[in-house]
Amino acid sequence: MKDALFRRVAGDGAGPYDPQEYRIEEVFDASCMKDVQSEPDHRNVAINKVGIKNLRYPVTVLDRDKGQQYTVAAINMYVDLPHECKGTHMSRFVELLHLFRPKLSLKTFSDILTQMKSHLDARSAHIEVTFPFFMEKQAPVSQSIGLMDYTCRLVGSINSSKVDLVSEVRVPISSVCPCSREISVHGAHNQRGMVHLRTRFKRFIWIEDMIELVERTASCDVYSVLKRADEKYVTERGFSNPKFVEDIVRDIAVELKKDKNITWFDVSVENFESIHNHNAYAYISSGGQPEI
Amino acid sequence: MKDALFRRVAGDGAGPYDPQEYRIEEVFDASCMKDVQSEPDHRNVAINKVGIKNLRYPVTVLDRDKGQQYTVAAINMYVDLPHECKGTHMSRFVELLHLFRPKLSLKTFSDILTQMKSHLDARSAHIEVTFPFFMEKQAPVSQSIGLMDYTCRLVGSINSSKVDLVSEVRVPISSVCPCSREISVHGAHNQRGMVHLRTRFKRFIWIEDMIELVERTASCDVYSVLKRADEKYVTERGFSNPKFVEDIVRDIAVELKKDKNITWFDVSVENFESIHNHNAYAYISSGGQPEI
Amino acid sequence: MKDALFRRVAGDGAGPYDPQEYRIEEVFDASCMKDVQSEPDHRNVAINKVGIKNLRYPVTVLDRDKGQQYTVAAINMYVDLPHECKGTHMSRFVELLHLFRPKLSLKTFSDILTQMKSHLDARSAHIEVTFPFFMEKQAPVSQSIGLMDYTCRLVGSINSSKVDLVSEVRVPISSVCPCSREISVHGAHNQRGMVHLRTRFKRFIWIEDMIELVERTASCDVYSVLKRADEKYVTERGFSNPKFVEDIVRDIAVELKKDKNITWFDVSVENFESIHNHNAYAYISSGGQPEI
Amino acid sequence: MKDALFRRVAGDGAGPYDPQEYRIEEVFDASCMKDVQSEPDHRNVAINKVGIKNLRYPVTVLDRDKGQQYTVAAINMYVDLPHECKGTHMSRFVELLHLFRPKLSLKTFSDILTQMKSHLDARSAHIEVTFPFFMEKQAPVSQSIGLMDYTCRLVGSINSSKVDLVSEVRVPISSVCPCSREISVHGAHNQRGMVHLRTRFKRFIWIEDMIELVERTASCDVYSVLKRADEKYVTERGFSNPKFVEDIVRDIAVELKKDKNITWFDVSVENFESIHNHNAYAYISSGGQPEI
Repeated sequence: MKDALFRRVAGDGAGPYDPQEYRIEEVFDASCMKDVQSEPDHRNVAINKVGIKNLRYPVTVLDRDKGQQYTVAAINMYVDLPHECKGTHMSRFVELLHLFRPKLSLKTFSDILTQMKSHLDARSAHIEVTFPFFMEKQAPVSQSIGLMDYTCRLVGSINSSKVDLVSEVRVPISSVCPCSREISVHGAHNQRGMVHLRTRFKRFIWIEDMIELVERTASCDVYSVLKRADEKYVTERGFSNPKFVEDIVRDIAVELKKDKNITWFDVSVENFESIHNHNAYAYISSGGQPEI
Repeated sequence: MKDALFRRVAGDGAGPYDPQEYRIEEVFDASCMKDVQSEPDHRNVAINKVGIKNLRYPVTVLDRDKGQQYTVAAINMYVDLPHECKGTHMSRFVELLHLFRPKLSLKTFSDILTQMKSHLDARSAHIEVTFPFFMEKQAPVSQSIGLMDYTCRLVGSINSSKVDLVSEVRVPISSVCPCSREISVHGAHNQRGMVHLRTRFKRFIWIEDMIELVERTASCDVYSVLKRADEKYVTERGFSNPKFVEDIVRDIAVELKKDKNITWFDVSVENFESIHNHNAYAYISSGGQPEI
Repeated sequence: MKDALFRRVAGDGAGPYDPQEYRIEEVFDASCMKDVQSEPDHRNVAINKVGIKNLRYPVTVLDRDKGQQYTVAAINMYVDLPHECKGTHMSRFVELLHLFRPKLSLKTFSDILTQMKSHLDARSAHIEVTFPFFMEKQAPVSQSIGLMDYTCRLVGSINSSKVDLVSEVRVPISSVCPCSREISVHGAHNQRGMVHLRTRFKRFIWIEDMIELVERTASCDVYSVLKRADEKYVTERGFSNPKFVEDIVRDIAVELKKDKNITWFDVSVENFESIHNHNAYAYISSGGQPEI
Repeated sequence: MKDALFRRVAGDGAGPYDPQEYRIEEVFDASCMKDVQSEPDHRNVAINKVGIKNLRYPVTVLDRDKGQQYTVAAINMYVDLPHECKGTHMSRFVELLHLFRPKLSLKTFSDILTQMKSHLDARSAHIEVTFPFFMEKQAPVSQSIGLMDYTCRLVGSINSSKVDLVSEVRVPISSVCPCSREISVHGAHNQRGMVHLRTRFKRFIWIEDMIELVERTASCDVYSVLKRADEKYVTERGFSNPKFVEDIVRDIAVELKKDKNITWFDVSVENFESIHNHNAYAYISSGGQPEI
């Protein structure tokens, strides 16, 4: 038996990956080598997911305002393995990723998943892509421009021909404690928090829209550049808008429930309490759909 | 309204926490302070989990051979919050934990969960406790003794009166690649891997039993002290026992399916491949029961 | 040549490690095995540090109030290797640690380092021990008791017969921004911060003393249990005591400079700004002594 | 007093940051706000470093083969603060970084450091930039192409007018144990390791050159794509080239000492031992120059 490689057989390979342009072919004589992975297995145990984990790769992701942005992802790719097969072909995940790298987004996830299923002879396929995402953001008074970073994650699965996508954002926020404000003569404890929102949807949604939805629910959102007039603004806005983790997670849930495009969500808020060395946490799930 | 504290009203507090010995009482005049958390909420959104996250605490856990061992845990504690309540009482989690600290194990989890539900006026409660666990282990030839460390996690939930427990172990192993061994004139690539096993069960199970089950399925288990004669042994044992991630995850699944006490499991193996900078991964779930 | 092991030859092994009670002996016939590590090396390059890294071990550390406390450490141990030796004997580090485990503190560091140098035939030895340390702490008004956790690190080196010790504490604090307070009509942004203090000293110092010194310089210190009356207290205390990272790092430096027992220090403060997703940082070194 | 902002006063801002094109100006009336940072300080303690830490930013770095590549960095920026000044102006670091972002490399570090010193009225300035760096790499037999990722770090300081630069690479490698190979009938334990190399130099050096130097000293280098013929090659190459951590760190030191362009280095190798749950470690410093 010979070893297989992806080879381009048509086109120039410049645009996004077109499966018509490639085929898997045997490119060198590996007939002397036993293909252990392809041997039969007799334990009668199917494997839900097998593949590669934590591969770092530069990727291009869709950007609502600029068309696309460059970033770096940590990528996991899995397929299922039927009970009668001994092993999967790990190198094909990386080869396939290398071909798809130019265009990675919710829009191309179905293509990647379909190709994974096909090239790995599988019935289901999974991909998880985690990356920092950047948005330009103006300070509220001085209009000074900086970049905010958000850790995002796209998760896709295909099962038979049904594709399931989940879009995740982690959004740093500022929260002011209502209890502390109420009972104290001056001031109120406040802190950085992190919101983790996961959504399923009917039509494509922009990462940026989910980030902005979360930021609107905070006591105040956070910025990378703040001049003194901005600092005054965000301090006063937060103080006039105190919220518990319970309030923030609920306000996000209320917004998401209004959106008919969102078919499922869960959301957590974790506050890095300024008065403790542990965190406050709240979590809401819309229920209904199982986790990916 | 006054603020509440746990106070011992009977007994000497020396043994494990006995709820008969404590009551929540109002211990100082906080009547001038508004209790913002206890106000009604009108958003009509219940919260699945609210509480504290990542609190480090010294704990005592059950040890099969020595009765108990001292370790340090990172602890999360949550309850649900009905739609009509504005906030929970975060400080009560820490107070309750402080009382239970002397004895933390699967055996006492039901008590803790019941107390959480009661003292926080909740319908469900959750606790997650992650800690390093140590076992003495003799080198296979020299019998030299060292300690192995395993990251473990106990997760408990109570819903109405039904308690759901999950026991998790992370076990480092050594794996030798069967393909590499088969096709190479000499040697075979091998590496450290990490097995993550989660189980539900009918009767109490020892963490140690789960760890030993996993270690038996590896190409070879790992040790903290190995003299040269041991190193020869583990090298040769691994080489004569090559396994893919697929093999290890399946062999663990086969063993668990034989055990009538295990009602649910999932298990993953992640190999820190010595020939790549990414990892190989395989995952099997017994299916059926939802995740905790 | 035969393989060597630590064996107890006197005493009962119950107390702290007594080198008189142990000797390294050849315990089994390893004469058929080549001792590759002991071969000569011809590259003419001495190695500054060689050993083991990130070994987790349960340890007992000194406690000012209770005598001792149990915790779990991550341990690094190194020796130098002269240019003419090919390799060191990695297993001896773990064996030696296993013997010393009952008593690990600044007070026993000199003994461990001396034994490492001796048993590894080295001219210098280094040990780094990182662990969570717990202190009981009463809430300021309700007197409710909880445990605070601090990540600590003891670092020791021996060179010829000179022992160099560094004691490190990481102390979480709360800081209130003076600028925000000054320019805002209401409130002031505040946040959790982390102080990292390293000291060299003439006479033994308690970890607890260093922690308390740091906590006194914060806008307010942090607690694990705070009832509402406490929350009012810490909010108001922080608000009346606003400090930049620059102020906190300086106030710590001023205190340390007054202490004739401290021969060297460096200290950093990192604030997890509630208005940004990045941190504010300040660092002062007393200069003079080189880093360990 | 008014607040200051960077404003472009000439040019189109399209190329790399040109200080001639920008000036700091007062852009809005902040005269009602007290400038707390600019007040005098009376503690008589200078601060070595004050600034921002862990700001994530997309950056463009020099690429030996392609001119440049896009990646994402975590950035720290500090200046010193004289004893008589109360605070620094944190927002200016981010503003300055935003202007320099298009071109970040060892070549532009002197410019950034000079600007930091100037705009923050400081006598010294420091910048630390950590980022994943990618190199295309062909499998040794099949020539299959993948991307390898390396975590790199550029560190620069300016003191008076003297600039000090350090270039750091972290390179994953594969190592085969010589002892295990020698004493075992079949096989030899091997594992992934991580080399951390830091260098100072006379003339500009490519990150890629340092990475390739390290990879040549391993038992075998690692790849992202390996077909079976490649796997046979890397297994056999590693087995015929066994090395301890001591050997690898020495071989790197020997190569660096030959290079007259390298004025200082230190290098560590950490092996994630496949037979232990702890790591083997070796470290060599060329000595002489102090750490940055």
